[in-house]
Amino acid sequence: MRQLAAAILLLSLPFEGLAQQPAAKPLPGYTSTSSATELDWEKRFREIPEAKRAHENMKVLAAHPHHVGSEAQRKNAEWMVKQYKSWGWDAKIEQFDVLYPTPKSQLVEMIAPTKFVMKLTETPLAEDPYTHETTTQLPGFNIYSADGDVTGPLVYANYGMRDDYEELERQGISVKGAIVITRYGGGWRGLKPKLAYEHGAVGCIIYSDPADDGYGQNDVLPKGPMRPSMGVQRGSVADTSLYSGDPLTPGEGSVKGTKRLKIEESKAIMKIPVLPVSYGDAEPLLKSLDGPAVPSTWRGALPFTYHFGAGKTKVHMNLKFNWETKPVLDVVATMKGSTEPDQWIVRGNHYDGWVNGADDPISGQSGLLEEARALGELHKKGWNPKRTLIYTAWDGEEPGLLGSTEWAETHAADLDKHAILYVNSDESNRGFLNAAGSYQTEQLVNDIARQITDPETKVSVWDRQFAARATRAGRGGAAPSGDIIPIGAVGSGSDFQAFVDHLGITTVSLGFGGEDRSGTYHSAYDTPWFIEHFGDKESLYGKAIADMAGTLVMRVADADVLPYDFRNLASTVKGYSSEIQALVKQMQRAASERKKNIDAGYYKLAADPTKTVKLPEALTPVPEMDFTALDAAIAQLAKAAAELKAAEDAAGPLDAARAASINTKLSLAERKFLNPAGLPRRPWMEHVLYAPGVYTGYGVKTLPGIREAVEDSNFQEATQQMVIVTNAIKAEAEYLQQIAQEFAAK
Amino acid sequence: MRQLAAAILLLSLPFEGLAQQPAAKPLPGYTSTSSATELDWEKRFREIPEAKRAHENMKVLAAHPHHVGSEAQRKNAEWMVKQYKSWGWDAKIEQFDVLYPTPKSQLVEMIAPTKFVMKLTETPLAEDPYTHETTTQLPGFNIYSADGDVTGPLVYANYGMRDDYEELERQGISVKGAIVITRYGGGWRGLKPKLAYEHGAVGCIIYSDPADDGYGQNDVLPKGPMRPSMGVQRGSVADTSLYSGDPLTPGEGSVKGTKRLKIEESKAIMKIPVLPVSYGDAEPLLKSLDGPAVPSTWRGALPFTYHFGAGKTKVHMNLKFNWETKPVLDVVATMKGSTEPDQWIVRGNHYDGWVNGADDPISGQSGLLEEARALGELHKKGWNPKRTLIYTAWDGEEPGLLGSTEWAETHAADLDKHAILYVNSDESNRGFLNAAGSYQTEQLVNDIARQITDPETKVSVWDRQFAARATRAGRGGAAPSGDIIPIGAVGSGSDFQAFVDHLGITTVSLGFGGEDRSGTYHSAYDTPWFIEHFGDKESLYGKAIADMAGTLVMRVADADVLPYDFRNLASTVKGYSSEIQALVKQMQRAASERKKNIDAGYYKLAADPTKTVKLPEALTPVPEMDFTALDAAIAQLAKAAAELKAAEDAAGPLDAARAASINTKLSLAERKFLNPAGLPRRPWMEHVLYAPGVYTGYGVKTLPGIREAVEDSNFQEATQQMVIVTNAIKAEAEYLQQIAQEFAAK
Repeated sequence: MRQLAAAILLLSLPFEGLAQQPAAKPLPGYTSTSSATELDWEKRFREIPEAKRAHENMKVLAAHPHHVGSEAQRKNAEWMVKQYKSWGWDAKIEQFDVLYPTPKSQLVEMIAPTKFVMKLTETPLAEDPYTHETTTQLPGFNIYSADGDVTGPLVYANYGMRDDYEELERQGISVKGAIVITRYGGGWRGLKPKLAYEHGAVGCIIYSDPADDGYGQNDVLPKGPMRPSMGVQRGSVADTSLYSGDPLTPGEGSVKGTKRLKIEESKAIMKIPVLPVSYGDAEPLLKSLDGPAVPSTWRGALPFTYHFGAGKTKVHMNLKFNWETKPVLDVVATMKGSTEPDQWIVRGNHYDGWVNGADDPISGQSGLLEEARALGELHKKGWNPKRTLIYTAWDGEEPGLLGSTEWAETHAADLDKHAILYVNSDESNRGFLNAAGSYQTEQLVNDIARQITDPETKVSVWDRQFAARATRAGRGGAAPSGDIIPIGAVGSGSDFQAFVDHLGITTVSLGFGGEDRSGTYHSAYDTPWFIEHFGDKESLYGKAIADMAGTLVMRVADADVLPYDFRNLASTVKGYSSEIQALVKQMQRAASERKKNIDAGYYKLAADPTKTVKLPEALTPVPEMDFTALDAAIAQLAKAAAELKAAEDAAGPLDAARAASINTKLSLAERKFLNPAGLPRRPWMEHVLYAPGVYTGYGVKTLPGIREAVEDSNFQEATQQMVIVTNAIKAEAEYLQQIAQEFAAK
Repeated sequence: MRQLAAAILLLSLPFEGLAQQPAAKPLPGYTSTSSATELDWEKRFREIPEAKRAHENMKVLAAHPHHVGSEAQRKNAEWMVKQYKSWGWDAKIEQFDVLYPTPKSQLVEMIAPTKFVMKLTETPLAEDPYTHETTTQLPGFNIYSADGDVTGPLVYANYGMRDDYEELERQGISVKGAIVITRYGGGWRGLKPKLAYEHGAVGCIIYSDPADDGYGQNDVLPKGPMRPSMGVQRGSVADTSLYSGDPLTPGEGSVKGTKRLKIEESKAIMKIPVLPVSYGDAEPLLKSLDGPAVPSTWRGALPFTYHFGAGKTKVHMNLKFNWETKPVLDVVATMKGSTEPDQWIVRGNHYDGWVNGADDPISGQSGLLEEARALGELHKKGWNPKRTLIYTAWDGEEPGLLGSTEWAETHAADLDKHAILYVNSDESNRGFLNAAGSYQTEQLVNDIARQITDPETKVSVWDRQFAARATRAGRGGAAPSGDIIPIGAVGSGSDFQAFVDHLGITTVSLGFGGEDRSGTYHSAYDTPWFIEHFGDKESLYGKAIADMAGTLVMRVADADVLPYDFRNLASTVKGYSSEIQALVKQMQRAASERKKNIDAGYYKLAADPTKTVKLPEALTPVPEMDFTALDAAIAQLAKAAAELKAAEDAAGPLDAARAASINTKLSLAERKFLNPAGLPRRPWMEHVLYAPGVYTGYGVKTLPGIREAVEDSNFQEATQQMVIVTNAIKAEAEYLQQIAQEFAAK
């Protein structure tokens, strides 16, 4: 190994016969020497993970239903600890005790105009042995639903998002006292009961329409990968746009002695009963609805006309839960850093599934385990990361990012001091690299992606993603220009939330996917049998995620100087500001167009006089907003980032003390974007650049304080938030300038 | 009457006490005196048509199935002649003998993997007595289908348009020797078997998917207005993009002695058997299809996954027709002009239905009859139009615009000399004015629309249409600017085709609609019962079309100078040129983008390596095209139109001889756009500004010679056609300049 590194090093020396060979440019954050060594170790690392072993891991971890508190989950945790130990890691289980309600009884029935009682069971598939283990499965439910015994007229509300309620209002249909039935899709599931409740509904049913992930997309199981008629999507309705983790312990680890809210005090717990059902169960209710026919965007794929309802169809729901405390068992494995042990890289993927969870999350976790095994082997062969690696398997992600959040909250003080990077993954499927995170890592992610081989096409995952973007066939938006594939901003929906949104830790989230569509999400049909028939059959992308994430971890763990490039950050934030300014302009145009049409009476004239649809009302007038200070701060950030890069390039090798000091500062740069007061009405959400949207859920809002205030026509708050964001960006710029000076100091 | 006119006239004189009242501006083409008289007669005209009588007309004409050659149709014709005569018109039936094949026998059956024989009957509705008259109904069929006894694998081709065949090719699926099943929609029905034939299919089935006009849109009959499961859309598949009228007599009237093609010689007759069916009949076949699942834009609303097919599902079709000659009976009524009897205004609406045809076409024809009655009454009260009115009820529109085309071809020489305007309508429903035609009438149509009252809202139909456009709730595109609502260009699908596309007669086509959607089009369910339950229940828009079209006819019939304003024509044609230039640029960009991605190998890299979808191929390179001469000709036309308007405004009252000479010239201005050689491969289509698209059918293509050549990447032909169009526009400009000079001559 050292021999090979020396050989590579030789190539970069301009000696006889190799004079025309250009000197290899060292990796960012590395010297020529350390760069060659690093590339060699990384190459040797990627020779170790095997798809076959990832596949075996998957079959162990997803063999049985293994939700929070289940026997199988404890066995999985213990098995992983054993594995880690066998690979030379220091590993343990960290337990947190969390509120984890499970169904005690559930009834949904149509009581008028005809009687129909929902079955509420997922039929096992003859072909798939895993689906027959029904005694240990949790039934379909939305965790953190309220208990409730309610009866009311049924109203169909499409996806149950804000614009759907605008349409209901236009139609003159109220959901007050009603039970709302919405379909999955269009936005985060928890918003459906939340908005139903805010509009006065007493209960909420969420069903999976065949248009969205059933026969309307492709053949259903067992012939094809889509959701069969009795398939149910489980899922949490805890309001993670407020905070993640145990709903009773916001901001605190759920450990012994922590003060807990009463259930009724928790703002994250739903106030009305909500239940997910299959379209087999929903069909008789939807078919029975009367009232006007819905608009085209509301139509699903069931074979009848969809109506709004609020008429003769009445529904009775009775849900009772066991409001118990259950253990979440995080597996935490450590490999201590050799020279900077106090700088921590945390790497995580959850391992709890709603049922067997072979795809979500085990396809990712089984790859992560191969990554950890390979790093362990490498360590045995002499590789010593400078920095400390903490590899985790999070429990309780599904109910509300419980394991990762409780761990992050418990260790918040240490993490604040030591955490230089959090690398997340979740399920990993056939297709394209999908990366999101802190923009100082964008160049790094691109650099690594160019070195990782796509297992199906044998080109780099960067080349494949670039081709997909260029031809618009893949995930993400327009064709990228230049040689950087933009990474996304992190929202919610996986375990990075506490790290980035609450603690301001530099974060990267990685995954593969986009090639296959399926309808097994959060159902009893997400099993190893499914994977072997319709998914990443040989877990090739389990190895791919191990290669990608493992290389990235190594690159940061071994760097002389942390390879963070803030120029990408500045240009991205500039884009956010432009988007919001365009939004303001668009809202101004819309408000003035609306006013013009109202004043002229056009809406009334254009409306069908035989119908009683409500006419559009005036929009809130949109004032001019001044983005000058924000844009100036962003320009200052851009300048500082460029200066920092120039200073780093000019500096040459640093002595250990200066490197340590600079690295500490670089690792803390993300913290400047924390506002300790948090976002308005969301004190736990401290990051001023990213947050899950209050009305998008998983979907990210960038510059959320400003953007969501604008979207809500709360221009006073938008202006206040702009000051906060501007100051944070200025602070970041000044901080980067300080680091640049430290590079330049003699 | 004359008293009132005098009173109005007085108002325009600046005398004491009325000095602040601005002088009423005379109508275009009128003097102050004749303008006031005209407005008075028009007002009195509109007091006569009654919705109630239009409704009674509808119940007479749509009482029984009355297709071409039926007993009911002859009775309808005779009844209308009698009506016209009772109103003082000179009226007669003109008969043409045309090829009119009707089904002798029809069989469609699935023979593998299971057996299923289609019922091919429309079930009568218990609620609707009209639907029970099944013995005189023609069954569902596509007229001018070929005879054929064919068997082949079934392939689903979505709407059966060109881009659908591109998708099939991408999927590696051939229709050679296959029977293609397409759904209605996406383009003209005749293109479906035409394209199927061009791609090698041996038969074609067209079904009505519930997504398009069945339960996917709204409730089906009898609960709602949409197509029930056994509803069939009849319709012609004669290729009217080549020529309309009897397929055996292109360009000639089908009268005694006219040479007729042999059936196999007619390019307008389909070469393979084609049959329209209900989704009730189509469902078992579609459900049986295998192969890959279709893309999202191909999905209908039947409750299963749609597949491409070409596998195990085999279908047998056996269609035989009676290839008989049948009479079409045009009703032609004349009111001779008082001072310019040799200038003819032709007004038409067809009256043949596929079955009862209460909406299509009787809702329009019943209004036209009220219009004719009112003009007859007005005539009795002393109104004498300067010009001759020819009011018609066309037979045989449904099979291929037979009655109007044969009449226009028979009287072509006279029409070329005398026809100054053709005013068309077809069905008329609740909603918004829809106008299309020659752009010198755009101002005129707008002027009249401001005077016509919308029966449901009591504002002018102009105000209502403007409001709809402004709020984008109505038909048509973007909000209009200024005070002109743009009219559309005429394509095909109604009786104006021979007048405008073949003879170059100034044309206006008018209708109301856009408020209600229904699924009874060309079915046995389009009955008076349907109208009274789901349509324009009291035929209010029968009166509206009478008011609108009648006023327009009067305005032109009485004018001192024909009120044609060519400025609108010039600006519209300028828009067409810009569109084609933008299309060329877009094609250039697409070809270069495609080439770039092919050269870089991006399509291959971005494709799913486990699938065998064909990768995009290089597009035909798009050369630079020079529009300078065309744009210069258009600029010359704009200048000439402005000069003409200025000369007319400056001229003051003309003596009779000069007015007659100028009017003759104005009426012939549209003829300058005829190219006697016709469009490429379509010699009958002589108009260089408008034609039905070869691959859109009813949909218009403007500057068709250039545009369709560009769309087909035939840039040599596009350049040749550009010369022809440029010369025609220059000729028009010079012609308008001559008329301007004639106005200005002392």
